[in-house]
Amino acid sequence: MTTHALQAAVKAVRDTTPLVQCLTNTVVAEITANVLLAVGASPAMCDTPEEAGDFAAIASGVLINAGTPSSEQYEGMRAAIAGATTAGTPWVLDPVAVGALKKRTQFCLEAVNHGPAAIRGNASEITALAGAGSGGRGVDATTDVRSAFDAARSLATDHQCVVAISGERDLIVSADRATWLDSGHPFLPLLIGTGCSLGAVCAAFLGAARGAGISDHDAILAAHAHMGAAGHIAGTLSAGPGSFHAAWIDALYSLRAADIAQLVTTEECEDK
Amino acid sequence: MTTHALQAAVKAVRDTTPLVQCLTNTVVAEITANVLLAVGASPAMCDTPEEAGDFAAIASGVLINAGTPSSEQYEGMRAAIAGATTAGTPWVLDPVAVGALKKRTQFCLEAVNHGPAAIRGNASEITALAGAGSGGRGVDATTDVRSAFDAARSLATDHQCVVAISGERDLIVSADRATWLDSGHPFLPLLIGTGCSLGAVCAAFLGAARGAGISDHDAILAAHAHMGAAGHIAGTLSAGPGSFHAAWIDALYSLRAADIAQLVTTEECEDK
Amino acid sequence: MTTHALQAAVKAVRDTTPLVQCLTNTVVAEITANVLLAVGASPAMCDTPEEAGDFAAIASGVLINAGTPSSEQYEGMRAAIAGATTAGTPWVLDPVAVGALKKRTQFCLEAVNHGPAAIRGNASEITALAGAGSGGRGVDATTDVRSAFDAARSLATDHQCVVAISGERDLIVSADRATWLDSGHPFLPLLIGTGCSLGAVCAAFLGAARGAGISDHDAILAAHAHMGAAGHIAGTLSAGPGSFHAAWIDALYSLRAADIAQLVTTEECEDK
Repeated sequence: MTTHALQAAVKAVRDTTPLVQCLTNTVVAEITANVLLAVGASPAMCDTPEEAGDFAAIASGVLINAGTPSSEQYEGMRAAIAGATTAGTPWVLDPVAVGALKKRTQFCLEAVNHGPAAIRGNASEITALAGAGSGGRGVDATTDVRSAFDAARSLATDHQCVVAISGERDLIVSADRATWLDSGHPFLPLLIGTGCSLGAVCAAFLGAARGAGISDHDAILAAHAHMGAAGHIAGTLSAGPGSFHAAWIDALYSLRAADIAQLVTTEECEDK
Repeated sequence: MTTHALQAAVKAVRDTTPLVQCLTNTVVAEITANVLLAVGASPAMCDTPEEAGDFAAIASGVLINAGTPSSEQYEGMRAAIAGATTAGTPWVLDPVAVGALKKRTQFCLEAVNHGPAAIRGNASEITALAGAGSGGRGVDATTDVRSAFDAARSLATDHQCVVAISGERDLIVSADRATWLDSGHPFLPLLIGTGCSLGAVCAAFLGAARGAGISDHDAILAAHAHMGAAGHIAGTLSAGPGSFHAAWIDALYSLRAADIAQLVTTEECEDK
Repeated sequence: MTTHALQAAVKAVRDTTPLVQCLTNTVVAEITANVLLAVGASPAMCDTPEEAGDFAAIASGVLINAGTPSSEQYEGMRAAIAGATTAGTPWVLDPVAVGALKKRTQFCLEAVNHGPAAIRGNASEITALAGAGSGGRGVDATTDVRSAFDAARSLATDHQCVVAISGERDLIVSADRATWLDSGHPFLPLLIGTGCSLGAVCAAFLGAARGAGISDHDAILAAHAHMGAAGHIAGTLSAGPGSFHAAWIDALYSLRAADIAQLVTTEECEDK
């Protein structure tokens, strides 16, 4: 990723305030909204079956997060996917704990066939979604990032989308490109909703980047870089995950695009 | 508003710990409860169809917030409105994103006819609720506060209630009185749930103020002043919306009534 | 409680990262997850009827919190209790506002007969669950801790479980032992979800302690001590409940087991 594309994507979000519709689990709804506001997007947690489809047509991006939804929220997700598809709104699938639990596995396997622009999960989830693993232990990955590469490449090729694997190093995989990203801080996984929020930020960056002529792959990479760079800064200011929470939101809000580019390291996988 | 009424209202809440029943969206439930505790009220998020009606009879005030409820929560809201009406408990309607989305517009148009003591929303929502606009873009107002005055006055007159329009300057409108309020900080709209929490605080202030012989108009004005003054103080202590969150809750808790009165400016609209 | 058992229980949680399934109310889901992460456990808010039973079989501990669940969540709770019972997973019942409200009272009276390992509530809730009181005012206890002793002892004897009564001083009651605990800070009840989180932490400590040969009584006592000691430290660092929130999570994460033991006082009730 060129530093230029990263900075342009961060700036595109801040300049255009993309409206991001989140159909997500109730545990992380608040932090997801605050993270979207901090990076410069506008959140809307519209997830009812009656409203979700119409809203997806006016949103800039949509997040479908499969963490413990009610029956009604599942119907809302189906409506949102249909509305987004018709309107051409890019949407992100976060297959939380897929593989480990039957109902959501069934839903995610159905959803992925409707054409997400991006899929974001940990290594266990990506592996399970590709039909190659059992999905780990709830939200804890039990598979390492590198070993999920083939599963990610297969999903990216089959569904023509970008697949992001979160881990100590993140790996962003498209049909013809793969990029490692080093960023973040060990406190990030100790704060609930940082991964789920990243899915929403991916939807924000996709929506803004497409209007600015930036590729989906670079948009997803920039979303991860923004979150990880803020995590690095927040880690230097925090005594534990409680103070980290506030410092991370502050950093998401105040970090300049050029600083974000300085705080992360990317590496293209030449041999893939 | 006299400084005296403002201080008396703040003190009435702290002295009587009004029990506030919140039927609100899951995104903002936690911050709403913490804000109520910080101003001196006691929150109860009781919203099931089976319990909401009974609870409204023992509550001091009720909040009905129409942001993305499930079918079951809509039934709970209907039960709470009925219970509050029978018991004479004042209730507040927050018509989140009304106008923009069909289901909640229908619900809010129905609810407003049951006699809320107050309505709180942004300019787009108030305009849409009065039947004069399309409701903006999700929770973002696309109408300015001043232009919503006629809609607010019409709602206040038709339903004999206080209508509060949130914006850079807030405008509190009754059938025979209208008051501008200057307070707050630009970080407030960057923290999810500050507006929704204000609706709950309005319910707390109504409940406490009625027992202290303070008018509903002054109660709603004092609720806005308390929230805005705390926002001003928190803004001076914060590096971004993350640290602002903690500082705002601290200020809601610790600001003395006399300080709140010093930190805001009110202006009666003489010509209306 | 010996200092040794307390330190061993804190260490057992940190060493084994118990997976805690929480079926809880949406208001406190986020803080509950963050508290579990901070003490060293792993949260999973899996509460749908389809998934809750299977998940309870792989969890180390389960929390059933009766605060305003939807019909679907009640079904999920029944499935989780059945799954936990079959698998031998210890589960904790938090009878939020039982007695005050009909539907949840009925549910809790049904649930308690299925054999929770522990029950945690305030004095009003414990009294009401034992059939001896009316349950207070929502989540506010209107009964003092000491007067709930007989109700707690009766529940502990009838259901062969540990009963914890939260208050200014906490009281932990088993069939043949009762222990007072002094810890905490006045800001704890001003932060929503600290009590509900304690129920989840009890489930974490039960799961970890059983594997380490620590008694359920000591596990529940240690859970309360960890939370209260962190509250004491956070109180010394905070200007109000907002800054207290972050400081409390930080202290839960960073306090050494030996420090926790120093920061609390326990007293066995010899005459009971």
